[in-house]
Amino acid sequence: MLTLKTDSSERWLQQVRENLPEILIDHAHCEKKAAGCAMNLIFAYVENYELCQEMVEIVNEELDHFQRVLDLLARRGIKFKRQIPSTYGRRLNDLVRKDEPQRGIDRLLVAGLIEARSCERFDLLRKHVDDAELSDFYHELFESEARHYTAYVRLAKMFGSEDVVLARLDELAGLEAEIIATGDPMPRMHS
Amino acid sequence: MLTLKTDSSERWLQQVRENLPEILIDHAHCEKKAAGCAMNLIFAYVENYELCQEMVEIVNEELDHFQRVLDLLARRGIKFKRQIPSTYGRRLNDLVRKDEPQRGIDRLLVAGLIEARSCERFDLLRKHVDDAELSDFYHELFESEARHYTAYVRLAKMFGSEDVVLARLDELAGLEAEIIATGDPMPRMHS
Repeated sequence: MLTLKTDSSERWLQQVRENLPEILIDHAHCEKKAAGCAMNLIFAYVENYELCQEMVEIVNEELDHFQRVLDLLARRGIKFKRQIPSTYGRRLNDLVRKDEPQRGIDRLLVAGLIEARSCERFDLLRKHVDDAELSDFYHELFESEARHYTAYVRLAKMFGSEDVVLARLDELAGLEAEIIATGDPMPRMHS
Repeated sequence: MLTLKTDSSERWLQQVRENLPEILIDHAHCEKKAAGCAMNLIFAYVENYELCQEMVEIVNEELDHFQRVLDLLARRGIKFKRQIPSTYGRRLNDLVRKDEPQRGIDRLLVAGLIEARSCERFDLLRKHVDDAELSDFYHELFESEARHYTAYVRLAKMFGSEDVVLARLDELAGLEAEIIATGDPMPRMHS
Protein backbone atom coordinates (compact mmCIF):
# COMPACT_ATOMS: atom_id res chain seq x y z
CA MET A 1 0.00 0.00 0.00
CA LEU A 2 2.80 2.43 0.83
CA THR A 3 4.74 2.13 -2.45
CA LEU A 4 8.08 1.99 -0.63
CA LYS A 5 10.71 0.06 -2.54
CA THR A 6 12.81 -1.08 0.38
CA ASP A 7 12.45 -2.00 4.04
CA SER A 8 14.40 -0.24 6.74
CA SER A 9 17.62 -2.04 7.53
CA GLU A 10 18.99 -3.71 10.63
CA ARG A 11 21.64 -0.94 10.54
CA TRP A 12 18.95 1.61 11.42
CA LEU A 13 17.41 -0.52 14.17
CA GLN A 14 20.88 -0.82 15.67
CA GLN A 15 21.18 3.00 15.65
CA VAL A 16 17.82 3.22 17.42
CA ARG A 17 18.75 0.68 20.08
CA GLU A 18 21.98 2.52 20.85
CA ASN A 19 20.63 6.10 20.68
CA LEU A 20 16.97 6.22 21.63
CA PRO A 21 17.06 9.71 23.25
CA GLU A 22 18.62 11.23 20.12
CA ILE A 23 16.01 9.50 17.93
CA LEU A 24 13.21 10.84 20.16
CA ILE A 25 14.56 14.39 19.91
CA ASP A 26 14.78 14.06 16.14
CA HIS A 27 11.23 12.73 16.10
CA ALA A 28 9.99 15.99 17.66
CA HIS A 29 11.85 17.97 14.98
CA CYS A 30 10.35 15.75 12.25
CA GLU A 31 6.81 16.45 13.46
CA LYS A 32 7.58 20.17 13.44
CA LYS A 33 8.99 19.93 9.91
CA ALA A 34 5.96 17.96 8.72
CA ALA A 35 3.71 20.73 10.05
CA GLY A 36 5.90 23.36 8.39
CA CYS A 37 5.80 21.51 5.06
CA ALA A 38 1.97 21.37 5.12
CA MET A 39 1.87 25.08 6.00
CA ASN A 40 4.16 25.88 3.06
CA LEU A 41 1.79 24.00 0.77
CA ILE A 42 -1.08 26.23 1.97
CA PHE A 43 0.96 29.30 1.03
CA ALA A 44 2.00 27.81 -2.33
CA TYR A 45 -1.47 26.61 -3.40
CA VAL A 46 -3.77 28.90 -1.44
CA GLU A 47 -6.36 29.03 -4.23
CA ASN A 48 -6.86 25.25 -4.07
CA TYR A 49 -9.60 24.90 -1.46
CA GLU A 50 -9.49 21.11 -1.07
CA LEU A 51 -5.72 21.07 -0.71
CA CYS A 52 -5.83 23.84 1.91
CA GLN A 53 -8.53 22.02 3.85
CA GLU A 54 -6.43 18.84 4.00
CA MET A 55 -3.28 20.80 4.87
CA VAL A 56 -5.04 22.57 7.78
CA GLU A 57 -5.86 19.15 9.23
CA ILE A 58 -2.34 17.87 8.70
CA VAL A 59 -0.74 20.98 10.26
CA ASN A 60 -2.94 20.55 13.33
CA GLU A 61 -2.20 16.84 13.67
CA GLU A 62 1.55 17.22 13.20
CA LEU A 63 1.72 20.04 15.75
CA ASP A 64 -0.25 17.90 18.19
CA HIS A 65 2.31 15.11 17.67
CA PHE A 66 5.15 17.62 18.05
CA GLN A 67 3.81 18.70 21.41
CA ARG A 68 3.22 15.15 22.54
CA VAL A 69 6.80 14.16 21.71
CA LEU A 70 8.04 17.22 23.66
CA ASP A 71 5.91 16.14 26.64
CA LEU A 72 7.22 12.60 26.38
CA LEU A 73 10.81 13.90 26.38
CA ALA A 74 10.07 16.06 29.44
CA ARG A 75 8.56 13.10 31.33
CA ARG A 76 11.69 11.09 30.57
CA GLY A 77 14.06 13.86 31.58
CA ILE A 78 15.51 14.12 28.06
CA LYS A 79 16.44 17.71 27.23
CA PHE A 80 15.00 18.77 23.89
CA LYS A 81 17.57 20.58 21.78
CA ARG A 82 18.52 21.48 18.24
CA GLN A 83 20.29 18.71 16.32
CA ILE A 84 21.88 18.49 12.91
CA PRO A 85 19.10 16.93 10.80
CA SER A 86 19.58 13.83 8.69
CA THR A 87 20.24 14.50 5.01
CA TYR A 88 17.10 12.54 4.01
CA GLY A 89 14.65 15.46 3.70
CA ARG A 90 17.08 17.69 1.83
CA ARG A 91 18.03 14.93 -0.60
CA LEU A 92 14.39 14.16 -1.32
CA ASN A 93 13.50 17.82 -1.73
CA ASP A 94 16.36 18.19 -4.22
CA LEU A 95 14.35 15.87 -6.50
CA VAL A 96 11.44 18.34 -6.75
CA ARG A 97 11.17 19.76 -10.26
CA LYS A 98 11.13 23.54 -10.68
CA ASP A 99 8.15 24.24 -12.97
CA GLU A 100 4.44 23.81 -12.33
CA PRO A 101 2.50 21.58 -12.46
CA GLN A 102 5.43 19.12 -12.08
CA ARG A 103 6.57 21.00 -9.01
CA GLY A 104 3.21 20.55 -7.28
CA ILE A 105 3.16 16.83 -8.09
CA ASP A 106 6.68 16.38 -6.73
CA ARG A 107 6.15 18.42 -3.55
CA LEU A 108 3.07 16.38 -2.68
CA LEU A 109 4.63 13.03 -3.59
CA VAL A 110 7.83 13.76 -1.66
CA ALA A 111 5.73 14.77 1.37
CA GLY A 112 3.77 11.54 0.88
CA LEU A 113 6.91 9.38 0.66
CA ILE A 114 8.28 10.91 3.86
CA GLU A 115 4.98 10.03 5.56
CA ALA A 116 5.17 6.52 4.10
CA ARG A 117 8.72 6.01 5.38
CA SER A 118 7.79 7.37 8.81
CA CYS A 119 4.85 5.00 8.81
CA GLU A 120 7.05 2.01 8.00
CA ARG A 121 9.55 3.02 10.68
CA PHE A 122 6.90 3.62 13.37
CA ASP A 123 5.64 0.12 12.71
CA LEU A 124 9.16 -1.25 13.13
CA LEU A 125 9.75 0.83 16.25
CA ARG A 126 6.46 -0.32 17.71
CA LYS A 127 7.60 -3.92 17.36
CA HIS A 128 11.23 -3.44 18.43
CA VAL A 129 11.11 -0.91 21.25
CA ASP A 130 10.46 -2.66 24.53
CA ASP A 131 8.45 0.19 26.04
CA ALA A 132 4.63 0.11 26.33
CA GLU A 133 4.12 3.88 26.24
CA LEU A 134 6.27 4.33 23.13
CA SER A 135 4.77 1.29 21.48
CA ASP A 136 1.20 2.64 21.86
CA PHE A 137 2.25 6.09 20.68
CA TYR A 138 4.02 4.70 17.61
CA HIS A 139 0.97 2.62 16.76
CA GLU A 140 -1.21 5.71 16.75
CA LEU A 141 1.31 7.64 14.67
CA PHE A 142 1.56 4.75 12.22
CA GLU A 143 -2.15 5.15 11.43
CA SER A 144 -1.93 8.89 11.13
CA GLU A 145 1.08 8.82 8.78
CA ALA A 146 -0.65 6.24 6.58
CA ARG A 147 -3.66 8.57 6.24
CA HIS A 148 -1.39 11.49 5.38
CA TYR A 149 0.43 9.45 2.74
CA THR A 150 -2.90 8.62 1.09
CA ALA A 151 -4.00 12.28 1.23
CA TYR A 152 -0.78 13.54 -0.38
CA VAL A 153 -0.94 11.04 -3.25
CA ARG A 154 -4.63 11.81 -3.84
CA LEU A 155 -3.93 15.58 -3.89
CA ALA A 156 -1.03 15.11 -6.32
CA LYS A 157 -3.62 13.87 -8.83
CA MET A 158 -5.07 17.38 -8.91
CA PHE A 159 -1.83 18.45 -10.66
CA GLY A 160 -1.61 15.66 -13.23
CA SER A 161 -3.35 12.57 -14.59
CA GLU A 162 -3.47 9.36 -12.54
CA ASP A 163 -0.96 7.70 -14.91
CA VAL A 164 1.50 10.58 -14.77
CA VAL A 165 1.31 10.82 -10.97
CA LEU A 166 1.66 7.08 -10.36
CA ALA A 167 4.61 6.82 -12.76
CA ARG A 168 6.35 9.69 -10.98
CA LEU A 169 5.52 8.15 -7.58
CA ASP A 170 7.16 4.94 -8.72
CA GLU A 171 10.24 6.84 -9.88
CA LEU A 172 10.51 8.90 -6.68
CA ALA A 173 9.96 5.80 -4.54
CA GLY A 174 12.96 4.21 -6.28
CA LEU A 175 15.11 7.24 -5.47
CA GLU A 176 13.79 7.35 -1.90
CA ALA A 177 14.83 3.71 -1.47
CA GLU A 178 18.39 4.59 -2.53
CA ILE A 179 18.51 7.58 -0.19
CA ILE A 180 17.23 5.68 2.84
CA ALA A 181 19.55 2.74 2.09
CA THR A 182 22.56 5.09 2.19
CA GLY A 183 21.31 6.59 5.46
CA ASP A 184 23.34 8.82 7.77
CA PRO A 185 25.94 8.05 10.39
CA MET A 186 23.98 10.21 12.89
CA PRO A 187 21.06 8.35 14.50
CA ARG A 188 17.88 9.98 13.23
CA MET A 189 14.28 9.03 12.37
CA HIS A 190 15.31 8.89 8.71
CA SER A 191 19.00 7.93 9.02
CA MET B 1 -5.55 47.67 26.97
CA LEU B 2 -4.30 47.23 23.42
CA THR B 3 -1.54 49.90 23.50
CA LEU B 4 -2.53 51.20 20.07
CA LYS B 5 -1.69 54.89 19.64
CA THR B 6 -4.34 55.75 17.09
CA ASP B 7 -7.85 54.74 16.07
CA SER B 8 -8.64 53.55 12.57
CA SER B 9 -9.79 56.40 10.36
CA GLU B 10 -13.00 57.13 8.51
CA ARG B 11 -10.87 56.76 5.35
CA TRP B 12 -10.53 53.04 6.06
CA LEU B 13 -14.21 52.56 6.87
CA GLN B 14 -15.01 54.20 3.55
CA GLN B 15 -12.70 51.68 1.79
CA VAL B 16 -14.54 48.86 3.57
CA ARG B 17 -17.99 50.12 2.60
CA GLU B 18 -16.98 50.40 -1.04
CA ASN B 19 -14.97 47.16 -1.31
CA LEU B 20 -16.27 44.55 1.12
CA PRO B 21 -15.48 41.49 -1.08
CA GLU B 22 -11.86 42.58 -1.50
CA ILE B 23 -11.57 43.14 2.27
CA LEU B 24 -13.01 39.67 2.95
CA ILE B 25 -10.52 38.07 0.56
CA ASP B 26 -7.68 39.93 2.25
CA HIS B 27 -9.02 38.80 5.62
CA ALA B 28 -8.54 35.16 4.60
CA HIS B 29 -4.95 35.91 3.56
CA CYS B 30 -4.33 37.69 6.88
CA GLU B 31 -5.47 34.63 8.87
CA LYS B 32 -3.15 32.46 6.77
CA LYS B 33 -0.25 34.86 7.38
CA ALA B 34 -0.96 34.97 11.12
CA ALA B 35 -0.77 31.16 11.18
CA GLY B 36 2.46 31.25 9.15
CA CYS B 37 3.99 33.81 11.50
CA ALA B 38 3.23 31.66 14.57
CA MET B 39 4.69 28.62 12.77
CA ASN B 40 7.87 30.58 11.97
CA LEU B 41 8.20 31.43 15.67
CA ILE B 42 8.08 27.70 16.50
CA PHE B 43 10.96 27.11 14.08
CA ALA B 44 12.93 30.10 15.41
CA TYR B 45 12.50 29.35 19.13
CA VAL B 46 11.93 25.60 19.14
CA GLU B 47 13.78 25.11 22.42
CA ASN B 48 11.34 27.44 24.26
CA TYR B 49 8.61 25.03 25.36
CA GLU B 50 6.12 27.62 26.61
CA LEU B 51 6.42 29.71 23.47
CA CYS B 52 5.95 26.65 21.25
CA GLN B 53 2.90 25.57 23.24
CA GLU B 54 1.26 28.99 22.76
CA MET B 55 2.22 29.09 19.09
CA VAL B 56 0.67 25.66 18.45
CA GLU B 57 -2.62 27.01 19.81
CA ILE B 58 -2.37 30.18 17.76
CA VAL B 59 -1.57 28.27 14.54
CA ASN B 60 -4.64 26.09 15.12
CA GLU B 61 -6.92 29.04 15.79
CA GLU B 62 -5.68 31.13 12.85
CA LEU B 63 -6.02 28.21 10.45
CA ASP B 64 -9.54 27.62 11.74
CA HIS B 65 -10.34 31.28 11.03
CA PHE B 66 -8.69 31.01 7.62
CA GLN B 67 -10.96 28.13 6.71
CA ARG B 68 -14.04 29.85 8.08
CA VAL B 69 -13.37 32.95 6.00
CA LEU B 70 -12.91 30.75 2.91
CA ASP B 71 -16.26 29.09 3.67
CA LEU B 72 -17.92 32.45 4.14
CA LEU B 73 -16.55 33.63 0.79
CA ALA B 74 -17.84 30.46 -0.88
CA ARG B 75 -21.33 30.90 0.61
CA ARG B 76 -21.40 34.46 -0.73
CA GLY B 77 -20.18 33.48 -4.18
CA ILE B 78 -16.99 35.55 -3.82
CA LYS B 79 -14.09 33.91 -5.61
CA PHE B 80 -11.04 33.64 -3.35
CA LYS B 81 -7.88 34.70 -5.14
CA ARG B 82 -4.39 36.02 -4.64
CA GLN B 83 -4.20 39.79 -4.06
CA ILE B 84 -1.36 42.24 -3.67
CA PRO B 85 -1.05 42.55 0.12
CA SER B 86 -1.11 45.88 1.96
CA THR B 87 2.32 47.26 2.86
CA TYR B 88 1.45 47.19 6.58
CA GLY B 89 3.00 43.83 7.50
CA ARG B 90 6.18 44.41 5.54
CA ARG B 91 6.67 47.89 6.99
CA LEU B 92 6.18 46.58 10.52
CA ASN B 93 8.51 43.64 9.96
CA ASP B 94 11.16 46.04 8.68
CA LEU B 95 11.29 47.41 12.25
CA VAL B 96 12.45 44.07 13.69
CA ARG B 97 16.03 44.30 14.94
CA LYS B 98 18.58 41.78 13.66
CA ASP B 99 20.30 40.46 16.81
CA GLU B 100 18.93 38.35 19.63
CA PRO B 101 17.42 38.84 22.13
CA GLN B 102 16.13 42.14 20.61
CA ARG B 103 15.01 40.26 17.55
CA GLY B 104 12.81 37.92 19.60
CA ILE B 105 11.27 40.84 21.49
CA ASP B 106 10.49 42.66 18.25
CA ARG B 107 9.09 39.65 16.41
CA LEU B 108 6.70 38.93 19.26
CA LEU B 109 5.71 42.58 19.76
CA VAL B 110 5.13 43.17 16.05
CA ALA B 111 2.97 40.03 15.94
CA GLY B 112 1.14 41.36 19.01
CA LEU B 113 0.58 44.79 17.48
CA ILE B 114 -0.84 43.25 14.31
CA GLU B 115 -3.26 41.27 16.49
CA ALA B 116 -4.12 44.44 18.41
CA ARG B 117 -4.84 46.37 15.22
CA SER B 118 -6.92 43.49 13.84
CA CYS B 119 -8.79 43.45 17.13
CA GLU B 120 -9.55 47.17 16.93
CA ARG B 121 -10.66 46.84 13.32
CA PHE B 122 -12.88 43.80 13.94
CA ASP B 123 -14.62 45.81 16.65
CA LEU B 124 -15.17 48.65 14.20
CA LEU B 125 -16.34 46.30 11.46
CA ARG B 126 -18.74 44.61 13.86
CA LYS B 127 -20.38 47.97 14.54
CA HIS B 128 -20.33 49.33 10.99
CA VAL B 129 -21.10 46.33 8.80
CA ASP B 130 -24.83 45.88 8.50
CA ASP B 131 -24.69 42.09 8.27
CA ALA B 132 -25.62 39.80 11.20
CA GLU B 133 -23.43 36.86 10.13
CA LEU B 134 -20.33 39.02 9.67
CA SER B 135 -21.04 40.95 12.84
CA ASP B 136 -21.14 37.78 14.97
CA PHE B 137 -18.02 36.43 13.31
CA TYR B 138 -16.10 39.66 13.86
CA HIS B 139 -17.15 39.70 17.50
CA GLU B 140 -15.70 36.25 18.00
CA LEU B 141 -12.49 37.17 16.18
CA PHE B 142 -12.19 40.32 18.26
CA GLU B 143 -11.94 38.20 21.40
CA SER B 144 -9.47 35.78 19.87
CA GLU B 145 -7.15 38.55 18.59
CA ALA B 146 -7.20 40.23 22.01
CA ARG B 147 -6.07 36.96 23.62
CA HIS B 148 -3.31 36.56 21.05
CA TYR B 149 -2.11 40.12 21.63
CA THR B 150 -1.82 39.41 25.37
CA ALA B 151 0.02 36.14 24.72
CA TYR B 152 2.56 37.78 22.40
CA VAL B 153 3.35 40.58 24.84
CA ARG B 154 3.67 38.11 27.73
CA LEU B 155 6.02 35.89 25.71
CA ALA B 156 8.18 38.89 24.71
CA LYS B 157 9.00 39.24 28.41
CA MET B 158 10.89 35.94 28.19
CA PHE B 159 13.42 37.77 25.99
CA GLY B 160 13.87 40.92 28.12
CA SER B 161 12.86 42.62 31.35
CA GLU B 162 9.32 44.00 31.77
CA ASP B 163 10.67 47.58 31.52
CA VAL B 164 12.64 46.93 28.36
CA VAL B 165 9.74 45.14 26.69
CA LEU B 166 7.12 47.74 27.60
CA ALA B 167 9.36 50.60 26.46
CA ARG B 168 9.90 48.88 23.12
CA LEU B 169 6.18 48.14 22.84
CA ASP B 170 5.46 51.84 23.35
CA GLU B 171 8.01 52.73 20.67
CA LEU B 172 6.73 50.16 18.16
CA ALA B 173 3.12 51.19 18.86
CA GLY B 174 4.07 54.76 17.91
CA LEU B 175 5.55 53.56 14.63
CA GLU B 176 2.57 51.29 14.00
CA ALA B 177 0.27 54.30 14.42
CA GLU B 178 2.21 56.17 11.72
CA ILE B 179 2.13 53.19 9.36
CA ILE B 180 -1.61 52.58 9.74
CA ALA B 181 -2.34 56.32 9.42
CA THR B 182 -0.56 56.37 6.04
CA GLY B 183 -2.50 53.29 4.94
CA ASP B 184 -2.67 51.98 1.39
CA PRO B 185 -4.79 52.98 -1.59
CA MET B 186 -5.82 49.31 -2.03
CA PRO B 187 -8.67 48.30 0.29
CA ARG B 188 -7.24 45.78 2.75
CA MET B 189 -7.70 44.67 6.38
CA HIS B 190 -4.72 46.84 7.29
CA SER B 191 -4.92 49.56 4.61
